[in-house]
Amino acid sequence: MTSRLPENGFPVEPFNGNFHLKDVVSVEQFTDPREIELLFQKADEMRRSVEMREVRRDLYGYSVAELFYQPSTRTYTSFLAAAQRLGVSYITPIHGMTAYSSAAKGESLSDTVRTIEATTAADVIVLRHPGDDSSQEAAYYAQVPVINAGSGRKEHPTQGILDLYTIREELGRVDNLVVTMTGDLRNGRTIKSLAKLLVLGGNNIKFNFVSPEVLKMPKEVTNYLQSCGAEVYISDNGALEDVLPRTDVLYVTRIQSEWFTTQALEDLRERLGARVEGIDESTLKILANQLGENEYRKAVHGYEVNSGLMKSAKSEMIVMHPLPRVGEIAYDVDNDPRAAYFRQMRYGLYTRMALLSLVIGPAVNGEFKNDN
Amino acid sequence: MTSRLPENGFPVEPFNGNFHLKDVVSVEQFTDPREIELLFQKADEMRRSVEMREVRRDLYGYSVAELFYQPSTRTYTSFLAAAQRLGVSYITPIHGMTAYSSAAKGESLSDTVRTIEATTAADVIVLRHPGDDSSQEAAYYAQVPVINAGSGRKEHPTQGILDLYTIREELGRVDNLVVTMTGDLRNGRTIKSLAKLLVLGGNNIKFNFVSPEVLKMPKEVTNYLQSCGAEVYISDNGALEDVLPRTDVLYVTRIQSEWFTTQALEDLRERLGARVEGIDESTLKILANQLGENEYRKAVHGYEVNSGLMKSAKSEMIVMHPLPRVGEIAYDVDNDPRAAYFRQMRYGLYTRMALLSLVIGPAVNGEFKNDN
Amino acid sequence: MTSRLPENGFPVEPFNGNFHLKDVVSVEQFTDPREIELLFQKADEMRRSVEMREVRRDLYGYSVAELFYQPSTRTYTSFLAAAQRLGVSYITPIHGMTAYSSAAKGESLSDTVRTIEATTAADVIVLRHPGDDSSQEAAYYAQVPVINAGSGRKEHPTQGILDLYTIREELGRVDNLVVTMTGDLRNGRTIKSLAKLLVLGGNNIKFNFVSPEVLKMPKEVTNYLQSCGAEVYISDNGALEDVLPRTDVLYVTRIQSEWFTTQALEDLRERLGARVEGIDESTLKILANQLGENEYRKAVHGYEVNSGLMKSAKSEMIVMHPLPRVGEIAYDVDNDPRAAYFRQMRYGLYTRMALLSLVIGPAVNGEFKNDN
Repeated sequence: MTSRLPENGFPVEPFNGNFHLKDVVSVEQFTDPREIELLFQKADEMRRSVEMREVRRDLYGYSVAELFYQPSTRTYTSFLAAAQRLGVSYITPIHGMTAYSSAAKGESLSDTVRTIEATTAADVIVLRHPGDDSSQEAAYYAQVPVINAGSGRKEHPTQGILDLYTIREELGRVDNLVVTMTGDLRNGRTIKSLAKLLVLGGNNIKFNFVSPEVLKMPKEVTNYLQSCGAEVYISDNGALEDVLPRTDVLYVTRIQSEWFTTQALEDLRERLGARVEGIDESTLKILANQLGENEYRKAVHGYEVNSGLMKSAKSEMIVMHPLPRVGEIAYDVDNDPRAAYFRQMRYGLYTRMALLSLVIGPAVNGEFKNDN
Repeated sequence: MTSRLPENGFPVEPFNGNFHLKDVVSVEQFTDPREIELLFQKADEMRRSVEMREVRRDLYGYSVAELFYQPSTRTYTSFLAAAQRLGVSYITPIHGMTAYSSAAKGESLSDTVRTIEATTAADVIVLRHPGDDSSQEAAYYAQVPVINAGSGRKEHPTQGILDLYTIREELGRVDNLVVTMTGDLRNGRTIKSLAKLLVLGGNNIKFNFVSPEVLKMPKEVTNYLQSCGAEVYISDNGALEDVLPRTDVLYVTRIQSEWFTTQALEDLRERLGARVEGIDESTLKILANQLGENEYRKAVHGYEVNSGLMKSAKSEMIVMHPLPRVGEIAYDVDNDPRAAYFRQMRYGLYTRMALLSLVIGPAVNGEFKNDN
Repeated sequence: MTSRLPENGFPVEPFNGNFHLKDVVSVEQFTDPREIELLFQKADEMRRSVEMREVRRDLYGYSVAELFYQPSTRTYTSFLAAAQRLGVSYITPIHGMTAYSSAAKGESLSDTVRTIEATTAADVIVLRHPGDDSSQEAAYYAQVPVINAGSGRKEHPTQGILDLYTIREELGRVDNLVVTMTGDLRNGRTIKSLAKLLVLGGNNIKFNFVSPEVLKMPKEVTNYLQSCGAEVYISDNGALEDVLPRTDVLYVTRIQSEWFTTQALEDLRERLGARVEGIDESTLKILANQLGENEYRKAVHGYEVNSGLMKSAKSEMIVMHPLPRVGEIAYDVDNDPRAAYFRQMRYGLYTRMALLSLVIGPAVNGEFKNDN
């Protein structure tokens, strides 16, 4: 870790077949499907343990620091539970870094990370932070591994991992799948991570990207997926009904109304050009709010997944959502056995246990070098 | 739990002689004095353990989630300590649900509860929430038991339980008692719970309700207590001195000044009728504040318990308060051996340990069916 | 603890050679160098344990409450880690007392402390609070020992202890030292505590106090140090370069800009006298901000420690800082082996483990009576 130079940015090191003492900052670090399988076999072991109520001691005598600079229900609680269930002896979980740490006094992230490492003698730091490069920066400065629990809008690798594991556990395979992603495909980080892991970990993947046109999947991502051999079908403003009968995995994401307001404001400024000077800032914002709200309503219209829509889906398929939801999936779907979104969160516990144990636990035998 | 329908509301299930895997949402679930005795015997066992510094492992391998949506010193710390002292292996205590969870992003309580259950594999959820029906709602959706640690203004069952246990431990009995309740009898939830448990658990209870008239105990409650055989003496605007010499338990509660402001505002609106339209909202509030403050001062006047007043009390009696206090009990009473309010909080630890262990621990032998 | 009277203030009890069940509220409680040595020998033992990854059980079955009323990264996490690494069975760590406790409802500190003691059956209370006398007040009311983790601007004894231990570990001695303190010597509490411990624990100490004149070390402190036999050299507005070549310990502290604003405001009021009445409060504040900012810039100018400056320092010396820093030490010093400030925080873990274990653990043999 000490050889990296910040002038070069904070480079991401590939796993090269081995998680031991590695930082986990991005799904881009996976370059071999066997890395995913190694992780998932460990997760299987964790699943059995939890279900059998086995008390594990993998990380007895170890120390884990969990630093959260943003509100989080799922990721925070599952990383905390994961550490506890591995028998970690010393856990420092801080949910309110922004309010209760020296971040409030203007301390830099690199100083704070080195501080917690020093004060707690942590073996690993789990970090959630609004900065896009926060995890890489922390990994550069920390002497111990850093696990990214969500960095800005850019990366949330453990979400991608648990999503792929969910598919494997629920459908029994990660190959030969029709995966329909819907909602905000433009801004959502989780779907991009999952898509990348899918084409790495599985064969014969067909994607349907169904979203309002303004929220469509960026061209770079679709190009990348195609270059990896995936089939991609893009349906801007299209209907879920059209693709649902052939879908194995329906992945729904939240469409955030604030995004539309921001867009409307930018749009107004562009269209008005110099004339914008004559308009009061607050008037502009009211206008943008109204326009944005209209666009939002148009955008979400027709994207709600409900029990009526589910009638057209296969009997063997799953509905996923990273949650929280705000209306994208109706409550009447919750009791449908195909609704996998609550089970999905439980898989987060198993995969995070697996990751923690592979990163800081004793080195696993039989690891391999990536021969790419 | 899955058979309940929200259309019927969220019904409360009686304990029927057995706490095992039951939700604990209301004192109304107690219907047999033997249920109270079962719980208290367990609490006695816990008390001995704590006093002997015995390290217990009742809940070794178990997982407890504690979700607090409201500030709480007593309940939060004593539930946390209770879980730890039972040897719970995995605890997820969240003090700031409002600030740090997806509640901030608009997630529904039922989704959040199911989330935490999934991410932590919790065996029980302890919930404090401002919504009156929050615990019942959570219990309906969760697959594991929910324990109400305070729901809105309506229920706080573990407070009632620890209050009754305090009386039993301090006075050696829950029968043949003169119980004087004072302060805000209209809005206080703890005194109503305690009163109901007293008439269920004890015989020959006489109540004195001494309060400002505007804060008097609601008729439904006094009727209920009388229907259970209790003697009730109501002393609106009356003096504590009159009843103190015969009192075994003096239960003091806080009178909250905000309540008077709210009342004054309602009152003003009613009296002014249509003319209220002509008055500026902020003027109305200033007026209500002044009127409310006056009423508050009149109401609290004469209700302070101090060492002078305590001279007229029996030598064998106790003073209780759910705390925090703001002037209802003078500091000069703290060293009086009859001041039980700090010990009362310790009984909270024992009773919460008992409850957690009975609800999720291995089923207790010798339980009974309620034959009511 | 119960014999003290608040009318006399809240007196500080000297350790008298023994930490067992003592409150730790001030460095003034140390009166014998052997007390420091006893503590440091314990810290050495803790250091070895942590470095060897030994799992300790010194405080198995014990209960520790940590109540923090102010944001804190270092002290909070290191006390938490310290308790965990001693095998404390029950820990109640509350980072947000102000937001989540009844303090928000106006409860007094003495009630809150007695509450937590009751609800958690704590064996010791670790308290961080903005009130200067908070720890003494808590110690007066609590039945168990209170450890001061920072009280207002007055005392932060465990910082002084870890600072002295840092010097001992890094330089191998606490005697025959040239100690240069710089930054805000007027308001900084940590340097005063360290200076007092140094003259108690070590022989032949020479101090250089280098600071902007407005932030110079108070006369009482320099007088006290001289009366203890230390040599003191005061360099108002002086340059670090002049003293650095002879310095063994360079202790840097933060200069806070807000202080200058406050001073400028007081100054303005004094100078304007009666005429201040004619000036709008907000105008006065803007003026004070500008004047304060200017003074601040002048004050900090020339006090930055960077790699250029470090060229003139000895090869065997250390740079210390209580952190967080905001520019007093340039990042380019971080990799200098003489930069001890991150290691300094790790020593905080060892010394706090030592203190907790000596205060509440089984009494240590071979303790001594202070024969002063």
